[in-house]
Amino acid sequence: MAHQPTIPKGTRDFSPAVMVRRNFIFDTVKSVFQLYGYLPIETPAMENLSTLMGKYGEEGDKLLFKILNSGDFLSKIKEPRQYIEREMLNNILPGIVEGIKKIVSNYEKYDKTEQFQQVKEYLALLQYGDIIYFLEEHFGWFSNTITEKGLRYDLTVPFARYVVQNRNDIVFPFKRYQIQPVWRADKPQKGRYREFFQCDVDVIGSNSLMNEAELVLIMNGVFKKLGIKNTIKLNNRKVLYGIAEYLGETGKFVSFTVAIDKIDKIGIQKVKEELSLSGFTATSIDILNEILSFTGNSVEKIEFLSKILSQTETGSKGMTEVSSVFELLKGLELSSDVEFDLTLARGLNYYTGAIFEVEATDVTIGSICGGGRYDDLTGIFGLPGISGIGVSFGADRIYDVMMELGLFPDQTTNSTQVLFVNFGEKEQKYCLQLVNKLRQSGINTELYPDTSKIKKQMSYADSRKIPFVALVGENEMKENILTVKNMISGEQSRMTIEDLILKINTFTR
Amino acid sequence: MAHQPTIPKGTRDFSPAVMVRRNFIFDTVKSVFQLYGYLPIETPAMENLSTLMGKYGEEGDKLLFKILNSGDFLSKIKEPRQYIEREMLNNILPGIVEGIKKIVSNYEKYDKTEQFQQVKEYLALLQYGDIIYFLEEHFGWFSNTITEKGLRYDLTVPFARYVVQNRNDIVFPFKRYQIQPVWRADKPQKGRYREFFQCDVDVIGSNSLMNEAELVLIMNGVFKKLGIKNTIKLNNRKVLYGIAEYLGETGKFVSFTVAIDKIDKIGIQKVKEELSLSGFTATSIDILNEILSFTGNSVEKIEFLSKILSQTETGSKGMTEVSSVFELLKGLELSSDVEFDLTLARGLNYYTGAIFEVEATDVTIGSICGGGRYDDLTGIFGLPGISGIGVSFGADRIYDVMMELGLFPDQTTNSTQVLFVNFGEKEQKYCLQLVNKLRQSGINTELYPDTSKIKKQMSYADSRKIPFVALVGENEMKENILTVKNMISGEQSRMTIEDLILKINTFTR
Repeated sequence: MAHQPTIPKGTRDFSPAVMVRRNFIFDTVKSVFQLYGYLPIETPAMENLSTLMGKYGEEGDKLLFKILNSGDFLSKIKEPRQYIEREMLNNILPGIVEGIKKIVSNYEKYDKTEQFQQVKEYLALLQYGDIIYFLEEHFGWFSNTITEKGLRYDLTVPFARYVVQNRNDIVFPFKRYQIQPVWRADKPQKGRYREFFQCDVDVIGSNSLMNEAELVLIMNGVFKKLGIKNTIKLNNRKVLYGIAEYLGETGKFVSFTVAIDKIDKIGIQKVKEELSLSGFTATSIDILNEILSFTGNSVEKIEFLSKILSQTETGSKGMTEVSSVFELLKGLELSSDVEFDLTLARGLNYYTGAIFEVEATDVTIGSICGGGRYDDLTGIFGLPGISGIGVSFGADRIYDVMMELGLFPDQTTNSTQVLFVNFGEKEQKYCLQLVNKLRQSGINTELYPDTSKIKKQMSYADSRKIPFVALVGENEMKENILTVKNMISGEQSRMTIEDLILKINTFTR
Repeated sequence: MAHQPTIPKGTRDFSPAVMVRRNFIFDTVKSVFQLYGYLPIETPAMENLSTLMGKYGEEGDKLLFKILNSGDFLSKIKEPRQYIEREMLNNILPGIVEGIKKIVSNYEKYDKTEQFQQVKEYLALLQYGDIIYFLEEHFGWFSNTITEKGLRYDLTVPFARYVVQNRNDIVFPFKRYQIQPVWRADKPQKGRYREFFQCDVDVIGSNSLMNEAELVLIMNGVFKKLGIKNTIKLNNRKVLYGIAEYLGETGKFVSFTVAIDKIDKIGIQKVKEELSLSGFTATSIDILNEILSFTGNSVEKIEFLSKILSQTETGSKGMTEVSSVFELLKGLELSSDVEFDLTLARGLNYYTGAIFEVEATDVTIGSICGGGRYDDLTGIFGLPGISGIGVSFGADRIYDVMMELGLFPDQTTNSTQVLFVNFGEKEQKYCLQLVNKLRQSGINTELYPDTSKIKKQMSYADSRKIPFVALVGENEMKENILTVKNMISGEQSRMTIEDLILKINTFTR
């Protein structure tokens, strides 16, 4: 037997059973997005590298999957070829030629074989490799000429590109959702894949804090429908900046957010050490410690921090934003806990206002949804000054949470309701007409294609979890009747096709 | 302003309006597949090149999008590096060294600059390039070490790979459908994209001709639901082989099918010329001409050809298969024309029995669906002897046909039903509660996020085709009432939130 085929590491096949559950998540998410007036778009899997590069930091660039130019791309590498030739002629070969000349003159007394042996040794000594090294050294540049496209890394940058490209056809505020796979050349590990699905929902072209409130409602709505108990953590980058202002450490804002973001993982003590290493004064660290130590519910925290940051320019703006969002949410019944969390920072530096993260209450798996406001994402593509806000649902982690908690509904939706056993050629032709009638009534029906042993056919119905099996042999054909077996109760009864249709419609609806 | 961003040629963005129509196609196709008991699977966008290469012919291999290995792939090219070194040392350098030696000895009387000039000229004469040429020559091999993955080219080969890989978990016959994009580095042109969607439906592990009949019913069902008048053409590769048997030309079977397949495009006369060039005898061409000239309906054609092929081994089997399928379909009301078409051959050589193609009646666009039976597709992955049959619906061509014929339903499903105008901060907070009530009743509702001019807000409702606009100002708030404008009739009336919910439920359902 040939070598067992495999799929690239970090990728997955989705079997029918998994598909049903995944679609349950996607359908739920979509239905909530639509309830809030968001519209679907899709963008191509491949984007130009010029669109993707430089948007995700240096680390992100390395994680892009690049696509080799197709067709006769060798003809396109003329330039590097000339470049390599020129470089070799000017910089590498003169040295090699000198070396060979010396060897040849030193070994004139030896025969050709010996001469060549010496040349070879000399080249080996050079690790031949000046040339190879040169290729390697310049390979980044070289590979750029053989690849111009990459697989999308997230849905946010393609969305920004889409908005800029279609800005004349778009009515703002533009509310869109997008559910598609993204690809990252990350080291695959448990729960981290190289192909995974994001469900993004964004509104672009509106500064109103109503959008912040609405996104909280959307997150609340999605997780309520999915049955996942959760906490929605909310913070604001302006508040974080305000604290830096208050501490007199705005010059070290990035180190500040990076450190703050880790409190959950490494604890306050380590964060303080890290800040100290970043050059924060002992006084400022003490003050920060005091701020972070404040305990109370969100309302109390907001009150406390509003006082502290009232003198800071950005910080006071941030606190107004935070309290406005909480004000808007007041009186709306939320099943999620919504929590003002000072230690939420979010890595991506394009966030400029509200930031969100959702954690499942009963499973420790990290954030299952996150996002925030970005004031100038389309600016990178030449359309500045358009504010947007959005969150991204992590379908794969949500799937894992729901599996762990057993939250997927039992019914295997859209699966087959009736299987007709195949007794032979004559019966098969007769049954096809009956099957057709059931299908015309919208009932998912199968006729077993082969005249295999009844036992095999029944076990097919079993493994496919088909609730009814119809047995139509010679007697039934004569009487124009069906014998129907209820696969759950084991009960068997005779009925007309019309009765069966009625029975199934009652059973399933 | 920065350079306008673009997307790779041959790829597309799908706007909300297009998405609604595309989803209409996908949802229709899915609903029919499910009616027949087919289950969804999905496979990764990337497959190992070892899975893809050699499955689509030489032309197909060239059209694969290959993905550059990620991360530090230079460390992986150690082998080619050693290979290149060895090759250069053994085959290229000796010649170069000899040449340089000659030059050096010839030019001993000149100074070093002149000597080097001569070496350079000599190397230029060599086009330096023995090395470069070597790299190019072996680039395929070289590039194979920098790429191991490619984007899937169709859904059939990944499906075969899936079946082999999961054979222990699959209950056969396995009926699956799969709707996903595929990628081909084809020259982009009207109606041909580098990223496009296929909707495949296959059953694997059953030889029964019932499957052939069922696939005809599925094609009929899909196009009926979509409203596309069509002809389903049916032929059988065994019948084509039988004709070759009858003509005594089985040795030239591939040329025969390739030529036959072109009758539609180039006409019978040209086909005859092509067959003659392929070495068909004048007699056999005359006989073929007679067979192809037979006119009549499918039943008459089957009768005619069954007689002719009764003496051929494979051909008579094929005719039995064809007539059995027609027999099974008898008495089932089909809206498609089903036609036995001798000139249908299908390019792919893995087909071994029935072959299908669907053409739209009212638009000339080529086939909108096609497929057939393959007796050993999983054999390429080491699991021989499992027969399968399936067809693939071309979503993009179907979209074009439906656009041209105006077949898409008018209603923009799942779009927003009510827009609440935003009069200001106080009203916004009040409205959010009302909006929440509508959403809890399952009505897609928006609250305009900004307090823009009413005109702008109304024109947003207009362009989004939102049928109802709710205006809730100070008066309405006092009276606990809404002013609702019907955007189609222009009519305006006052009502409670409960009335509005009732009104919309009546309006939409």
